[in-house]
Amino acid sequence: MNLSLEQAETAIKAAKEKARQLSCLQNIALVDAGVNLVAFARMDDAWIGSIDVALRKAKTARYFNMETGELGKWSQPGGPGWQIEHSNGGLITIPGGIPIKNKNGEIIGAIGASGSTAENDHAVAQAGADAINSAASL
Amino acid sequence: MNLSLEQAETAIKAAKEKARQLSCLQNIALVDAGVNLVAFARMDDAWIGSIDVALRKAKTARYFNMETGELGKWSQPGGPGWQIEHSNGGLITIPGGIPIKNKNGEIIGAIGASGSTAENDHAVAQAGADAINSAASL
Amino acid sequence: MNLSLEQAETAIKAAKEKARQLSCLQNIALVDAGVNLVAFARMDDAWIGSIDVALRKAKTARYFNMETGELGKWSQPGGPGWQIEHSNGGLITIPGGIPIKNKNGEIIGAIGASGSTAENDHAVAQAGADAINSAASL
Amino acid sequence: MNLSLEQAETAIKAAKEKARQLSCLQNIALVDAGVNLVAFARMDDAWIGSIDVALRKAKTARYFNMETGELGKWSQPGGPGWQIEHSNGGLITIPGGIPIKNKNGEIIGAIGASGSTAENDHAVAQAGADAINSAASL
Repeated sequence: MNLSLEQAETAIKAAKEKARQLSCLQNIALVDAGVNLVAFARMDDAWIGSIDVALRKAKTARYFNMETGELGKWSQPGGPGWQIEHSNGGLITIPGGIPIKNKNGEIIGAIGASGSTAENDHAVAQAGADAINSAASL
Repeated sequence: MNLSLEQAETAIKAAKEKARQLSCLQNIALVDAGVNLVAFARMDDAWIGSIDVALRKAKTARYFNMETGELGKWSQPGGPGWQIEHSNGGLITIPGGIPIKNKNGEIIGAIGASGSTAENDHAVAQAGADAINSAASL
Repeated sequence: MNLSLEQAETAIKAAKEKARQLSCLQNIALVDAGVNLVAFARMDDAWIGSIDVALRKAKTARYFNMETGELGKWSQPGGPGWQIEHSNGGLITIPGGIPIKNKNGEIIGAIGASGSTAENDHAVAQAGADAINSAASL
Repeated sequence: MNLSLEQAETAIKAAKEKARQLSCLQNIALVDAGVNLVAFARMDDAWIGSIDVALRKAKTARYFNMETGELGKWSQPGGPGWQIEHSNGGLITIPGGIPIKNKNGEIIGAIGASGSTAENDHAVAQAGADAINSAASL
Protein backbone atom coordinates (compact mmCIF):
# COMPACT_ATOMS: atom_id res chain seq x y z
CA MET A 1 0.00 0.00 0.00
CA ASN A 2 1.13 3.45 -0.88
CA LEU A 3 0.67 6.93 0.57
CA SER A 4 -2.06 8.80 -1.36
CA LEU A 5 -2.06 12.47 -2.30
CA GLU A 6 -5.08 12.98 -0.05
CA GLN A 7 -3.12 11.58 2.90
CA ALA A 8 -0.12 13.73 2.04
CA GLU A 9 -2.26 16.86 1.89
CA THR A 10 -3.79 15.96 5.26
CA ALA A 11 -0.28 15.70 6.69
CA ILE A 12 0.85 19.00 5.21
CA LYS A 13 -2.17 20.82 6.63
CA ALA A 14 -1.52 19.45 10.13
CA ALA A 15 2.22 20.12 9.87
CA LYS A 16 1.61 23.75 8.92
CA GLU A 17 -0.73 24.19 11.88
CA LYS A 18 1.88 22.74 14.23
CA ALA A 19 4.52 25.07 12.79
CA ARG A 20 2.29 28.06 13.47
CA GLN A 21 1.78 26.90 17.06
CA LEU A 22 5.55 26.64 17.43
CA SER A 23 6.08 30.00 15.70
CA CYS A 24 8.41 28.59 13.08
CA LEU A 25 8.48 28.38 9.28
CA GLN A 26 8.73 24.94 7.75
CA ASN A 27 9.30 23.04 4.55
CA ILE A 28 7.31 19.78 4.50
CA ALA A 29 7.81 16.87 2.11
CA LEU A 30 6.11 13.49 1.73
CA VAL A 31 7.35 10.45 -0.19
CA ASP A 32 5.55 7.19 -0.91
CA ALA A 33 6.63 3.61 -0.21
CA GLY A 34 8.90 3.65 -3.26
CA VAL A 35 10.67 6.80 -2.00
CA ASN A 36 9.08 8.97 -4.70
CA LEU A 37 7.78 12.47 -3.95
CA VAL A 38 4.02 12.83 -3.39
CA ALA A 39 3.63 16.37 -2.05
CA PHE A 40 5.62 19.34 -0.81
CA ALA A 41 4.92 22.76 0.72
CA ARG A 42 7.17 25.61 1.78
CA MET A 43 5.70 28.17 4.16
CA ASP A 44 6.35 31.76 3.05
CA ASP A 45 9.82 32.97 4.08
CA ALA A 46 10.94 29.54 5.32
CA TRP A 47 14.65 28.78 4.81
CA ILE A 48 15.34 28.09 1.13
CA GLY A 49 18.05 25.59 2.07
CA SER A 50 15.46 23.60 3.97
CA ILE A 51 13.61 22.67 0.77
CA ASP A 52 16.26 20.08 0.00
CA VAL A 53 16.73 19.15 3.66
CA ALA A 54 13.03 18.35 4.05
CA LEU A 55 13.05 16.26 0.86
CA ARG A 56 16.12 14.32 2.02
CA LYS A 57 14.71 13.77 5.53
CA ALA A 58 11.57 12.22 4.06
CA LYS A 59 13.62 10.01 1.74
CA THR A 60 16.09 9.01 4.45
CA ALA A 61 13.26 7.95 6.79
CA ARG A 62 11.84 5.62 4.14
CA TYR A 63 15.22 4.41 2.88
CA PHE A 64 15.98 2.90 6.29
CA ASN A 65 12.49 2.66 7.84
CA MET A 66 13.47 4.68 10.88
CA GLU A 67 13.34 8.22 12.17
CA THR A 68 16.18 10.30 10.76
CA GLY A 69 17.37 11.23 14.27
CA GLU A 70 17.83 7.55 15.09
CA LEU A 71 20.00 7.03 12.03
CA GLY A 72 21.95 10.12 13.08
CA LYS A 73 22.88 8.39 16.33
CA TRP A 74 24.37 5.51 14.35
CA SER A 75 26.34 7.75 12.02
CA GLN A 76 28.37 9.57 14.68
CA PRO A 77 32.19 9.28 14.75
CA GLY A 78 33.08 5.76 15.84
CA GLY A 79 29.49 4.61 15.37
CA PRO A 80 28.25 1.63 13.34
CA GLY A 81 26.82 3.80 10.57
CA TRP A 82 29.67 6.31 10.33
CA GLN A 83 29.30 8.50 7.23
CA ILE A 84 26.26 6.66 5.85
CA GLU A 85 25.13 10.14 4.75
CA HIS A 86 27.34 9.71 1.67
CA SER A 87 24.94 7.11 0.23
CA ASN A 88 21.88 7.65 -1.94
CA GLY A 89 23.05 10.99 -3.27
CA GLY A 90 23.18 12.46 0.23
CA LEU A 91 21.16 11.58 3.33
CA ILE A 92 20.04 13.93 6.10
CA THR A 93 20.15 12.32 9.55
CA ILE A 94 18.96 15.31 11.58
CA PRO A 95 15.63 14.74 13.39
CA GLY A 96 12.54 15.66 11.36
CA GLY A 97 12.09 12.61 9.12
CA ILE A 98 9.53 10.00 10.19
CA PRO A 99 8.21 6.85 8.48
CA ILE A 100 4.42 6.67 8.01
CA LYS A 101 2.61 3.40 8.65
CA ASN A 102 -0.91 2.24 7.83
CA LYS A 103 -3.10 0.62 10.46
CA ASN A 104 -1.59 -2.79 9.69
CA GLY A 105 1.83 -1.43 10.62
CA GLU A 106 3.13 -1.45 7.04
CA ILE A 107 5.27 1.50 5.99
CA ILE A 108 3.51 3.41 3.22
CA GLY A 109 5.82 6.42 2.98
CA ALA A 110 7.53 9.07 5.07
CA ILE A 111 7.39 12.75 5.99
CA GLY A 112 10.27 15.20 6.33
CA ALA A 113 10.17 18.67 7.90
CA SER A 114 12.89 21.32 8.04
CA GLY A 115 13.10 24.98 8.91
CA SER A 116 13.80 25.40 12.59
CA THR A 117 15.44 23.54 15.48
CA ALA A 118 15.71 19.76 15.34
CA GLU A 119 13.07 19.58 18.07
CA ASN A 120 10.62 21.76 16.18
CA ASP A 121 11.28 19.97 12.88
CA HIS A 122 10.57 16.63 14.54
CA ALA A 123 7.40 17.92 16.22
CA VAL A 124 6.11 19.27 12.91
CA ALA A 125 6.82 16.00 11.10
CA GLN A 126 5.18 14.03 13.91
CA ALA A 127 2.06 16.19 13.69
CA GLY A 128 1.88 15.42 9.99
CA ALA A 129 2.31 11.68 10.50
CA ASP A 130 -0.23 11.64 13.32
CA ALA A 131 -2.84 13.39 11.18
CA ILE A 132 -2.69 10.59 8.61
CA ASN A 133 -3.14 7.96 11.28
CA SER A 134 -6.01 9.87 12.89
CA ALA A 135 -7.78 10.23 9.56
CA ALA A 136 -7.23 6.53 8.83
CA SER A 137 -8.74 5.46 12.13
CA LEU A 138 -12.06 7.20 11.51
CA MET B 1 7.22 40.09 -5.22
CA ASN B 2 7.19 36.37 -4.76
CA LEU B 3 4.74 33.54 -5.26
CA SER B 4 3.15 32.64 -1.91
CA LEU B 5 2.29 29.16 -0.68
CA GLU B 6 -1.38 30.17 -0.70
CA GLN B 7 -1.11 31.09 -4.39
CA ALA B 8 0.72 27.86 -5.15
CA GLU B 9 -1.97 25.82 -3.41
CA THR B 10 -4.64 27.68 -5.36
CA ALA B 11 -2.83 26.76 -8.57
CA ILE B 12 -2.46 23.09 -7.60
CA LYS B 13 -6.17 22.83 -6.79
CA ALA B 14 -7.15 24.28 -10.17
CA ALA B 15 -4.56 22.18 -12.01
CA LYS B 16 -5.92 18.98 -10.43
CA GLU B 17 -9.46 19.92 -11.45
CA LYS B 18 -8.31 20.53 -15.02
CA ALA B 19 -6.51 17.18 -15.06
CA ARG B 20 -9.69 15.43 -13.97
CA GLN B 21 -11.62 17.16 -16.76
CA LEU B 22 -9.01 15.98 -19.26
CA SER B 23 -9.00 12.47 -17.72
CA CYS B 24 -5.27 12.49 -17.09
CA LEU B 25 -3.00 12.12 -14.06
CA GLN B 26 -0.59 14.96 -13.39
CA ASN B 27 2.40 16.02 -11.37
CA ILE B 28 2.27 19.75 -10.60
CA ALA B 29 5.15 21.90 -9.31
CA LEU B 30 5.47 25.59 -8.46
CA VAL B 31 8.64 27.61 -7.99
CA ASP B 32 9.04 31.18 -6.79
CA ALA B 33 10.87 34.12 -8.36
CA GLY B 34 14.17 32.72 -7.05
CA VAL B 35 13.54 29.38 -8.85
CA ASN B 36 13.07 27.63 -5.52
CA LEU B 37 10.32 25.04 -4.95
CA VAL B 38 7.16 26.29 -3.21
CA ALA B 39 4.72 23.41 -3.62
CA PHE B 40 4.27 20.09 -5.39
CA ALA B 41 1.55 17.48 -5.78
CA ARG B 42 1.46 14.12 -7.56
CA MET B 43 -1.97 12.70 -8.33
CA ASP B 44 -2.27 9.02 -7.35
CA ASP B 45 -0.84 6.70 -10.03
CA ALA B 46 0.59 9.55 -12.12
CA TRP B 47 3.84 8.71 -13.93
CA ILE B 48 6.71 8.54 -11.43
CA GLY B 49 9.10 9.92 -14.03
CA SER B 50 6.95 13.03 -14.32
CA ILE B 51 7.79 14.15 -10.78
CA ASP B 52 11.15 15.33 -11.99
CA VAL B 53 9.81 16.51 -15.36
CA ALA B 54 7.22 18.76 -13.67
CA LEU B 55 9.87 20.21 -11.34
CA ARG B 56 12.19 20.92 -14.27
CA LYS B 57 9.42 22.47 -16.39
CA ALA B 58 8.61 24.92 -13.60
CA LYS B 59 12.28 25.78 -13.13
CA THR B 60 12.94 26.08 -16.87
CA ALA B 61 10.00 28.48 -17.31
CA ARG B 62 11.38 30.80 -14.64
CA TYR B 63 15.04 30.38 -15.64
CA PHE B 64 14.26 31.96 -19.02
CA ASN B 65 10.93 33.73 -18.33
CA MET B 66 9.15 31.94 -21.13
CA GLU B 67 6.92 28.94 -21.68
CA THR B 68 8.93 25.75 -21.90
CA GLY B 69 7.46 24.90 -25.30
CA GLU B 70 8.81 28.18 -26.68
CA LEU B 71 12.30 27.36 -25.46
CA GLY B 72 11.88 23.90 -27.00
CA LYS B 73 11.48 25.50 -30.43
CA TRP B 74 14.82 27.23 -29.99
CA SER B 75 16.64 24.08 -28.88
CA GLN B 76 15.93 22.03 -32.02
CA PRO B 77 18.78 20.86 -34.28
CA GLY B 78 20.23 23.92 -36.03
CA GLY B 79 18.30 26.27 -33.76
CA PRO B 80 19.69 29.23 -31.80
CA GLY B 81 19.33 27.43 -28.43
CA TRP B 82 20.58 24.03 -29.58
CA GLN B 83 21.03 21.70 -26.59
CA ILE B 84 20.38 24.36 -23.98
CA GLU B 85 18.85 21.47 -22.01
CA HIS B 86 22.37 20.64 -20.81
CA SER B 87 22.46 23.75 -18.61
CA ASN B 88 21.27 24.14 -15.03
CA GLY B 89 21.57 20.46 -14.23
CA GLY B 90 19.08 19.58 -16.98
CA LEU B 91 16.23 21.58 -18.48
CA ILE B 92 12.92 20.28 -19.83
CA THR B 93 11.69 22.19 -22.88
CA ILE B 94 8.50 20.21 -23.51
CA PRO B 95 5.27 22.29 -23.19
CA GLY B 96 3.80 22.39 -19.68
CA GLY B 97 5.98 25.01 -17.97
CA ILE B 98 4.55 28.55 -17.70
CA PRO B 99 5.80 31.72 -15.95
CA ILE B 100 3.39 33.27 -13.45
CA LYS B 101 2.97 37.07 -13.34
CA ASN B 102 1.32 39.39 -10.86
CA LYS B 103 -1.17 42.02 -12.00
CA ASN B 104 1.69 44.45 -12.70
CA GLY B 105 3.15 41.97 -15.18
CA GLU B 106 6.11 41.07 -12.97
CA ILE B 107 7.14 37.43 -12.95
CA ILE B 108 6.72 35.99 -9.44
CA GLY B 109 7.35 32.31 -10.19
CA ALA B 110 6.36 29.51 -12.53
CA ILE B 111 4.29 26.34 -12.75
CA GLY B 112 5.19 23.01 -14.35
CA ALA B 113 2.86 20.10 -15.14
CA SER B 114 3.69 16.64 -16.47
CA GLY B 115 1.87 13.35 -16.84
CA SER B 116 0.16 13.19 -20.21
CA THR B 117 0.49 14.63 -23.73
CA ALA B 118 2.28 17.95 -24.21
CA GLU B 119 -1.13 19.53 -24.95
CA ASN B 120 -2.70 18.25 -21.74
CA ASP B 121 0.34 19.17 -19.67
CA HIS B 122 0.22 22.71 -21.02
CA ALA B 123 -3.54 23.02 -20.42
CA VAL B 124 -3.15 21.84 -16.83
CA ALA B 125 -0.31 24.29 -16.16
CA GLN B 126 -2.31 27.11 -17.75
CA ALA B 127 -5.30 26.34 -15.53
CA GLY B 128 -3.02 26.61 -12.51
CA ALA B 129 -1.52 29.91 -13.63
CA ASP B 130 -4.95 31.33 -14.48
CA ALA B 131 -6.31 30.45 -11.04
CA ILE B 132 -3.63 32.60 -9.40
CA ASN B 133 -4.45 35.55 -11.63
CA SER B 134 -8.20 35.15 -11.08
CA ALA B 135 -7.75 35.08 -7.32
CA ALA B 136 -5.48 38.14 -7.51
CA SER B 137 -8.00 40.14 -9.49
CA LEU B 138 -10.75 39.79 -6.92
CA MET C 1 2.10 -5.28 -5.79
CA ASN C 2 5.81 -5.31 -6.25
CA LEU C 3 8.30 -7.37 -8.27
CA SER C 4 9.93 -10.01 -6.04
CA LEU C 5 13.56 -11.11 -6.12
CA GLU C 6 12.42 -14.58 -7.19
CA GLN C 7 10.62 -13.07 -10.19
CA ALA C 8 13.65 -10.93 -11.02
CA GLU C 9 15.94 -13.96 -10.92
CA THR C 10 13.53 -15.85 -13.17
CA ALA C 11 13.71 -12.97 -15.64
CA ILE C 12 17.51 -12.79 -15.55
CA LYS C 13 17.83 -16.53 -16.21
CA ALA C 14 15.54 -16.33 -19.24
CA ALA C 15 17.22 -13.16 -20.51
CA LYS C 16 20.65 -14.79 -20.36
CA GLU C 17 19.35 -17.81 -22.30
CA LYS C 18 17.92 -15.52 -24.96
CA ALA C 19 21.22 -13.64 -25.19
CA ARG C 20 23.07 -16.93 -25.76
CA GLN C 21 20.63 -17.86 -28.52
CA LEU C 22 21.26 -14.49 -30.15
CA SER C 23 25.03 -14.80 -29.61
CA CYS C 24 25.30 -11.53 -27.73
CA LEU C 25 26.49 -10.43 -24.29
CA GLN C 26 24.02 -8.56 -22.13
CA ASN C 27 23.61 -6.53 -18.98
CA ILE C 28 20.19 -7.13 -17.41
CA ALA C 29 18.55 -5.00 -14.70
CA LEU C 30 15.21 -5.19 -12.91
CA VAL C 31 13.50 -2.50 -10.85
CA ASP C 32 10.35 -2.72 -8.74
CA ALA C 33 7.16 -0.61 -8.85
CA GLY C 34 8.93 2.16 -6.92
CA VAL C 35 11.75 2.28 -9.50
CA ASN C 36 14.23 0.75 -7.03
CA LEU C 37 16.77 -1.89 -8.14
CA VAL C 38 15.89 -5.52 -7.39
CA ALA C 39 18.48 -7.51 -9.35
CA PHE C 40 21.23 -7.12 -11.91
CA ALA C 41 23.54 -9.39 -13.89
CA ARG C 42 26.34 -8.68 -16.38
CA MET C 43 27.38 -11.54 -18.63
CA ASP C 44 31.15 -12.00 -18.77
CA ASP C 45 32.81 -9.59 -21.25
CA ALA C 46 29.60 -7.64 -21.89
CA TRP C 47 30.08 -3.91 -22.55
CA ILE C 48 30.96 -2.13 -19.33
CA GLY C 49 29.12 0.98 -20.51
CA SER C 50 25.95 -1.07 -20.79
CA ILE C 51 25.77 -1.58 -17.03
CA ASP C 52 24.43 1.93 -16.64
CA VAL C 53 22.42 1.77 -19.86
CA ALA C 54 20.58 -1.35 -18.68
CA LEU C 55 19.85 0.24 -15.30
CA ARG C 56 18.51 3.40 -16.93
CA LYS C 57 16.40 1.46 -19.45
CA ALA C 58 14.69 -0.42 -16.63
CA LYS C 59 14.09 2.81 -14.71
CA THR C 60 12.88 4.70 -17.78
CA ALA C 61 10.35 1.96 -18.62
CA ARG C 62 8.82 2.23 -15.14
CA TYR C 63 9.10 6.00 -14.89
CA PHE C 64 6.71 6.39 -17.84
CA ASN C 65 5.02 2.96 -17.94
CA MET C 66 6.02 2.32 -21.54
CA GLU C 67 8.70 0.57 -23.56
CA THR C 68 11.81 2.72 -23.82
CA GLY C 69 11.71 2.56 -27.62
CA GLU C 70 8.23 4.10 -27.60
CA LEU C 71 9.44 7.02 -25.50
CA GLY C 72 12.35 7.35 -27.89
CA LYS C 73 9.91 8.00 -30.73
CA TRP C 74 8.41 10.92 -28.77
CA SER C 75 11.78 12.43 -27.91
CA GLN C 76 13.01 12.92 -31.49
CA PRO C 77 13.73 16.42 -32.85
CA GLY C 78 10.42 18.24 -33.26
CA GLY C 79 8.59 15.56 -31.25
CA PRO C 80 6.32 16.07 -28.25
CA GLY C 81 8.88 14.68 -25.78
CA TRP C 82 11.98 16.39 -27.21
CA GLN C 83 14.95 16.04 -24.86
CA ILE C 84 12.98 14.33 -22.07
CA GLU C 85 16.18 12.31 -21.54
CA HIS C 86 17.48 15.22 -19.44
CA SER C 87 15.02 14.40 -16.66
CA ASN C 88 15.47 12.01 -13.75
CA GLY C 89 19.25 12.16 -13.81
CA GLY C 90 19.36 10.85 -17.38
CA LEU C 91 16.93 8.58 -19.21
CA ILE C 92 17.74 6.03 -21.90
CA THR C 93 15.11 5.86 -24.65
CA ILE C 94 16.75 3.18 -26.82
CA PRO C 95 14.70 -0.06 -27.11
CA GLY C 96 15.44 -2.66 -24.43
CA GLY C 97 13.39 -1.39 -21.47
CA ILE C 98 9.98 -2.99 -20.87
CA PRO C 99 7.41 -2.58 -18.05
CA ILE C 100 6.41 -5.79 -16.25
CA LYS C 101 2.76 -6.37 -15.33
CA ASN C 102 1.09 -8.87 -13.05
CA LYS C 103 -1.88 -10.93 -14.23
CA ASN C 104 -4.27 -8.12 -13.22
CA GLY C 105 -2.47 -5.79 -15.60
CA GLU C 106 -0.86 -3.73 -12.84
CA ILE C 107 2.73 -2.63 -13.41
CA ILE C 108 4.96 -4.22 -10.77
CA GLY C 109 8.35 -3.18 -12.14
CA ALA C 110 10.44 -3.15 -15.30
CA ILE C 111 13.36 -4.84 -17.02
CA GLY C 112 16.20 -3.27 -18.96
CA ALA C 113 18.73 -5.00 -21.21
CA SER C 114 21.77 -3.57 -22.97
CA GLY C 115 24.81 -4.95 -24.73
CA SER C 116 24.05 -5.42 -28.42
CA THR C 117 21.79 -3.99 -31.14
CA ALA C 118 18.53 -2.32 -30.14
CA GLU C 119 16.70 -5.32 -31.62
CA ASN C 120 18.69 -7.82 -29.59
CA ASP C 121 18.43 -5.74 -26.42
CA HIS C 122 14.65 -5.58 -26.81
CA ALA C 123 14.36 -9.31 -27.52
CA VAL C 124 16.41 -10.14 -24.42
CA ALA C 125 14.30 -7.84 -22.22
CA GLN C 126 11.11 -9.29 -23.68
CA ALA C 127 12.31 -12.83 -22.91
CA GLY C 128 12.88 -11.77 -19.31
CA ALA C 129 9.46 -10.15 -18.99
CA ASP C 130 7.75 -13.14 -20.62
CA ALA C 131 9.39 -15.56 -18.19
CA ILE C 132 7.82 -13.76 -15.23
CA ASN C 133 4.39 -13.86 -16.81
CA SER C 134 4.78 -17.56 -17.73
CA ALA C 135 5.80 -18.41 -14.17
CA ALA C 136 2.87 -16.37 -12.80
CA SER C 137 0.33 -18.17 -14.95
CA LEU C 138 1.21 -21.62 -13.64
CA MET D 1 41.79 -12.21 -13.75
CA ASN D 2 38.31 -10.96 -13.21
CA LEU D 3 35.30 -12.00 -11.16
CA SER D 4 32.88 -13.95 -13.39
CA LEU D 5 29.09 -13.75 -13.32
CA GLU D 6 29.03 -17.40 -12.24
CA GLN D 7 31.23 -16.55 -9.24
CA ALA D 8 29.09 -13.54 -8.40
CA GLU D 9 25.93 -15.64 -8.51
CA THR D 10 27.60 -18.22 -6.25
CA ALA D 11 28.38 -15.45 -3.78
CA ILE D 12 24.85 -14.03 -3.87
CA LYS D 13 23.36 -17.46 -3.22
CA ALA D 14 25.59 -18.00 -0.19
CA ALA D 15 25.04 -14.48 1.08
CA LYS D 16 21.27 -14.89 0.92
CA GLU D 17 21.53 -18.16 2.87
CA LYS D 18 23.65 -16.45 5.54
CA ALA D 19 21.14 -13.59 5.77
CA ARG D 20 18.33 -16.09 6.36
CA GLN D 21 20.38 -17.76 9.12
CA LEU D 22 20.88 -14.36 10.74
CA SER D 23 17.21 -13.44 10.23
CA CYS D 24 17.99 -10.28 8.34
CA LEU D 25 17.19 -8.87 4.89
CA GLN D 26 20.13 -7.91 2.72
CA ASN D 27 21.15 -6.14 -0.43
CA ILE D 28 24.18 -7.80 -2.03
CA ALA D 29 26.42 -6.34 -4.75
CA LEU D 30 29.51 -7.62 -6.55
CA VAL D 31 31.99 -5.64 -8.62
CA ASP D 32 34.86 -6.90 -10.73
CA ALA D 33 38.56 -5.94 -10.70
CA GLY D 34 37.72 -2.79 -12.70
CA VAL D 35 35.19 -1.68 -10.04
CA ASN D 36 32.30 -2.31 -12.42
CA LEU D 37 29.06 -3.97 -11.31
CA VAL D 38 28.72 -7.69 -12.05
CA ALA D 39 25.64 -8.74 -10.09
CA PHE D 40 23.17 -7.46 -7.52
CA ALA D 41 20.24 -8.85 -5.53
CA ARG D 42 17.84 -7.25 -3.04
CA MET D 43 15.93 -9.61 -0.78
CA ASP D 44 12.22 -8.78 -0.61
CA ASP D 45 11.48 -5.96 1.87
CA ALA D 46 15.16 -5.20 2.51
CA TRP D 47 15.90 -1.52 3.20
CA ILE D 48 15.62 0.48 -0.03
CA GLY D 49 18.43 2.77 1.10
CA SER D 50 20.73 -0.22 1.36
CA ILE D 51 20.70 -0.77 -2.41
CA ASP D 52 23.08 2.12 -2.81
CA VAL D 53 24.98 1.33 0.39
CA ALA D 54 25.70 -2.23 -0.77
CA LEU D 55 26.88 -0.99 -4.17
CA ARG D 56 29.17 1.58 -2.54
CA LYS D 57 30.58 -0.92 -0.04
CA ALA D 58 31.57 -3.26 -2.87
CA LYS D 59 33.15 -0.41 -4.82
CA THR D 60 34.92 1.02 -1.77
CA ALA D 61 36.45 -2.38 -0.92
CA ARG D 62 37.94 -2.67 -4.40
CA TYR D 63 38.91 1.00 -4.71
CA PHE D 64 41.32 0.59 -1.78
CA ASN D 65 41.76 -3.20 -1.67
CA MET D 66 40.69 -3.46 1.95
CA GLU D 67 37.60 -4.22 3.99
CA THR D 68 35.35 -1.19 4.27
CA GLY D 69 35.41 -1.36 8.07
CA GLU D 70 39.21 -0.99 8.01
CA LEU D 71 38.96 2.13 5.88
CA GLY D 72 36.30 3.42 8.29
CA LYS D 73 38.86 3.31 11.11
CA TRP D 74 41.14 5.57 9.08
CA SER D 75 38.40 8.07 8.22
CA GLN D 76 37.49 8.99 11.82
CA PRO D 77 38.02 12.53 13.13
CA GLY D 78 41.77 13.15 13.42
CA GLY D 79 42.56 9.99 11.47
CA PRO D 80 44.86 9.64 8.46
CA GLY D 81 41.96 9.14 6.03
CA TRP D 82 39.67 11.80 7.48
CA GLN D 83 36.64 12.33 5.21
CA ILE D 84 37.90 10.10 2.41
CA GLU D 85 34.21 9.29 1.91
CA HIS D 86 33.98 12.45 -0.22
CA SER D 87 36.00 10.84 -3.01
CA ASN D 88 34.76 8.74 -5.90
CA GLY D 89 31.24 10.13 -5.81
CA GLY D 90 30.79 8.93 -2.23
CA LEU D 91 32.36 6.02 -0.36
CA ILE D 92 30.78 3.88 2.36
CA THR D 93 33.26 2.83 5.05
CA ILE D 94 30.85 0.87 7.26
CA PRO D 95 31.75 -2.86 7.60
CA GLY D 96 30.20 -5.11 4.93
CA GLY D 97 32.51 -4.56 1.96
CA ILE D 98 35.20 -7.20 1.34
CA PRO D 99 37.75 -7.67 -1.48
CA ILE D 100 37.62 -11.05 -3.25
CA LYS D 101 40.87 -12.83 -4.14
CA ASN D 102 41.62 -15.79 -6.38
CA LYS D 103 43.73 -18.69 -5.14
CA ASN D 104 46.91 -16.85 -6.12
CA GLY D 105 45.98 -14.02 -3.81
CA GLU D 106 45.16 -11.58 -6.60
CA ILE D 107 42.15 -9.34 -6.07
CA ILE D 108 39.52 -10.08 -8.72
CA GLY D 109 36.66 -7.98 -7.34
CA ALA D 110 34.70 -7.23 -4.19
CA ILE D 111 31.39 -7.87 -2.46
CA GLY D 112 29.23 -5.44 -0.49
CA ALA D 113 26.28 -6.26 1.77
CA SER D 114 23.86 -3.92 3.54
CA GLY D 115 20.56 -4.25 5.35
CA SER D 116 21.17 -4.87 9.04
CA THR D 117 23.81 -4.22 11.72
CA ALA D 118 27.42 -3.71 10.68
CA GLU D 119 28.20 -7.15 12.16
CA ASN D 120 25.49 -8.89 10.16
CA ASP D 121 26.37 -7.04 6.98
CA HIS D 122 30.00 -8.10 7.35
CA ALA D 123 29.07 -11.73 8.06
CA VAL D 124 26.85 -11.85 4.99
CA ALA D 125 29.55 -10.38 2.76
CA GLN D 126 32.11 -12.79 4.20
CA ALA D 127 29.83 -15.75 3.47
CA GLY D 128 29.60 -14.58 -0.13
CA ALA D 129 33.36 -14.16 -0.50
CA ASP D 130 34.04 -17.53 1.13
CA ALA D 131 31.66 -19.30 -1.25
CA ILE D 132 33.71 -18.12 -4.22
CA ASN D 133 36.91 -19.34 -2.68
CA SER D 134 35.37 -22.70 -1.72
CA ALA D 135 34.06 -23.22 -5.25
CA ALA D 136 37.48 -22.25 -6.69
CA SER D 137 39.34 -24.72 -4.50
CA LEU D 138 37.36 -27.72 -5.68
